Amino acid sequence: MRALVFDGSLRLVSDYPEPRRKPGESLIRPKAAGICNTDLEIIDGYMGYSGVLGHEFVGVVVESDQASLKNKRVVGEINLSCGRCDLCNAGMRTHCSSRTVLGIMGHPGVMADLCTLPDSNLHEVPENLSDEAAVFCEPLAAAFEILVQVPVEPGHRVIVLGDGKLGLLVAQVMKSTGADVLLAGHSREKLSLARDWSILTVLTDSLRTEAADVVVDCTGSTKGFEMALELVRPRGVIVVKTTTADKFSINLAPLVINEITVVGSRCGPFEPALKALADGSVRVAEMITKVFPMEQALEAFDVASRPETLKVIIRM
Amino acid sequence: MRALVFDGSLRLVSDYPEPRRKPGESLIRPKAAGICNTDLEIIDGYMGYSGVLGHEFVGVVVESDQASLKNKRVVGEINLSCGRCDLCNAGMRTHCSSRTVLGIMGHPGVMADLCTLPDSNLHEVPENLSDEAAVFCEPLAAAFEILVQVPVEPGHRVIVLGDGKLGLLVAQVMKSTGADVLLAGHSREKLSLARDWSILTVLTDSLRTEAADVVVDCTGSTKGFEMALELVRPRGVIVVKTTTADKFSINLAPLVINEITVVGSRCGPFEPALKALADGSVRVAEMITKVFPMEQALEAFDVASRPETLKVIIRM
Repeated sequence: MRALVFDGSLRLVSDYPEPRRKPGESLIRPKAAGICNTDLEIIDGYMGYSGVLGHEFVGVVVESDQASLKNKRVVGEINLSCGRCDLCNAGMRTHCSSRTVLGIMGHPGVMADLCTLPDSNLHEVPENLSDEAAVFCEPLAAAFEILVQVPVEPGHRVIVLGDGKLGLLVAQVMKSTGADVLLAGHSREKLSLARDWSILTVLTDSLRTEAADVVVDCTGSTKGFEMALELVRPRGVIVVKTTTADKFSINLAPLVINEITVVGSRCGPFEPALKALADGSVRVAEMITKVFPMEQALEAFDVASRPETLKVIIRM
Repeated sequence: MRALVFDGSLRLVSDYPEPRRKPGESLIRPKAAGICNTDLEIIDGYMGYSGVLGHEFVGVVVESDQASLKNKRVVGEINLSCGRCDLCNAGMRTHCSSRTVLGIMGHPGVMADLCTLPDSNLHEVPENLSDEAAVFCEPLAAAFEILVQVPVEPGHRVIVLGDGKLGLLVAQVMKSTGADVLLAGHSREKLSLARDWSILTVLTDSLRTEAADVVVDCTGSTKGFEMALELVRPRGVIVVKTTTADKFSINLAPLVINEITVVGSRCGPFEPALKALADGSVRVAEMITKVFPMEQALEAFDVASRPETLKVIIRM
C-alpha cells in the first residue's frame, strides 16, 4: 500500500506492508489526514518515532469484529491503552503506562491506504460533517480537554497565547463558555481570522499585564510560559499546551508568591469536539490552507512547515 | 527601642525609633520571634528589603482600639492588605496588589521591642501553648495552605521533598490527612526526627520514581521542581513551596504529556495551625535548635544559617 514514512528521512512509498488488525481492532481506510505540528516535530526528531506518520484523520472502517462499525465513517482517539494497568483502571486510559500512540509512538499512523485502531477508540462521524472538518476532531478534542481540567465560566478573562492552529481552536472553545477571550499572536492574517469569529485579538508585542483568570499557552515556544506567568492574576490558572524538546530558563518564585496553578493539557474528549464541528459552533473551514492529494504528501509537509500556513490536509 | 535591622548589613541597634500604630492597628510587644529561611534570603538580598527583620512571632498587645485585644498574647498574619481592591474584594487579601508584608516588604518586622499589625491580622494564642511553639504558627499556616489548595485524602501517596523546617511541618500536615507520606531529604538527623513522628523517610539520593499523587517541593533548591516532575504520577499534583531568586533550566514537555498540575503555595490559614499546635497533633518542640536572647541576635542568625540547624528562636 501507499504510505508516508519517516525513518530519519521522509519518504512516500508505494509498497509498504499492509497493517493487520488484532482482535478488537478495526481496519480503516483513511480518507483524509491533517498535518499537525507534532508531525513536523517528529520529522525534526521529537519522540524518536519511526514509521507511518499521521494521527489526525477521518476514514472508513473496512474490517471489524463490530458489525455496527463496518463501512462507517469514523474518527479515532490516538492513544492505544492496555485497559488493565492501574492508570487504565483509574479511568486514565490516555495515560496508560504501556500505551502506544497512533503515528507518534509505537503504532503506525494514518497517512497510508490502511491503518488500525481499537474499536473502542472510534467515533462515527455525523453525515453532515465534511471529511476536511472531521480531520479537526482530534486537535479540537485536545482544546476541549482544557474544559475538563479547568472551570472556565462566563465573564472569566481568558488569554490564549499563540495564533497557530491550536490557538485558533482553543480560543473558539474558550469563547464557547461565555468567557471574555483575548487571542494574542504574531500574524495579522491569523488574528484577522479570529476577529471574523468575533474573538478579540492583540499582537503579542502589544500585550500588557492583563490579570487574566486563565492563560492558555499554545505558542509552541519556550517563551510562552514565562509570558503566561506575567499575564495571569494571583491564584489564576496557566494551561500549558506547548510541548517542545527544548529546555528554557525560568524563575518559579512568581508562581509561588502569586499562588498560580499550572495545568499540563494533552488529548481530550471527542464527543464535544464532534458536536461542535457538526453544529458549526467551532469554525474550521477557514483554517484549511491547502488540501493535497496523497501523491503530493512531501510537498504538503513542505507547505505545512511554513510559518504562515494553518492546516494542511492530505487526501488519500 | 532595640531592633534587629538589615539595611545592606545586619545590625542590632538600641535606639531604633518606636513604630506608631495607625487606626485599626495594634501596637505589639513581641515576646519571641523565629528565624525563617526568608529572613536568611533577605540578608542575601532577596526582595530588596531594608528595615526591621522578622515575621514569625508571638507577642502581647500593648495598645489597640479593640478593647478585647488589650494585653492578649497573639500571633499575626503577615500580609497587610488594603481591603478595597479587586483582589481583597474577591477574598484574596494575601494577594492584595498594594499589600505590605511584615518584615519582608514595606512594613517593619517583629525582631524589635515593638511592632504593629492590623487588629484583623491578630489571633489570640491559647493559654496552654508555649511562646516557642506559637512562633511556629506562621510557617505551619503556610503548610496548611496546601490543604486549602489541593484535596489530599487517606491513601494518597504524598512525597515531601526537603527535610528542612518547612518540609518537617508539611510532612506532618500531610500525614494528618491520612495520606501515605514519604519525606525525602539529605540529613540523617532531620529525617530521624520525622521517623520519631512515624513518618516514612528516605535519603533523596535513594529516591526512585514513585508515581506519587502529590509531591510537595520544600527543598528551597532549584533541583526540587525537576525532581518532583519525575516523581509525580500522570495527572498528579506538584505543590511548589520553594522560592529562590535563582533561574533554572527546565523542559516542560513531561508536564504536558503527563497532564501534571503545579500549584504555587504561600501563606495560609492560622486557625488550623493554632489548633494543631495546641492539641499537639503537629510537633514542633523537637525542631528548635536553640533559643537566643535578643542581645545575641547576630549569633542567632549565624547559627540559623548553618545547614544542620532547624529553628532558631530569638527571645525579646
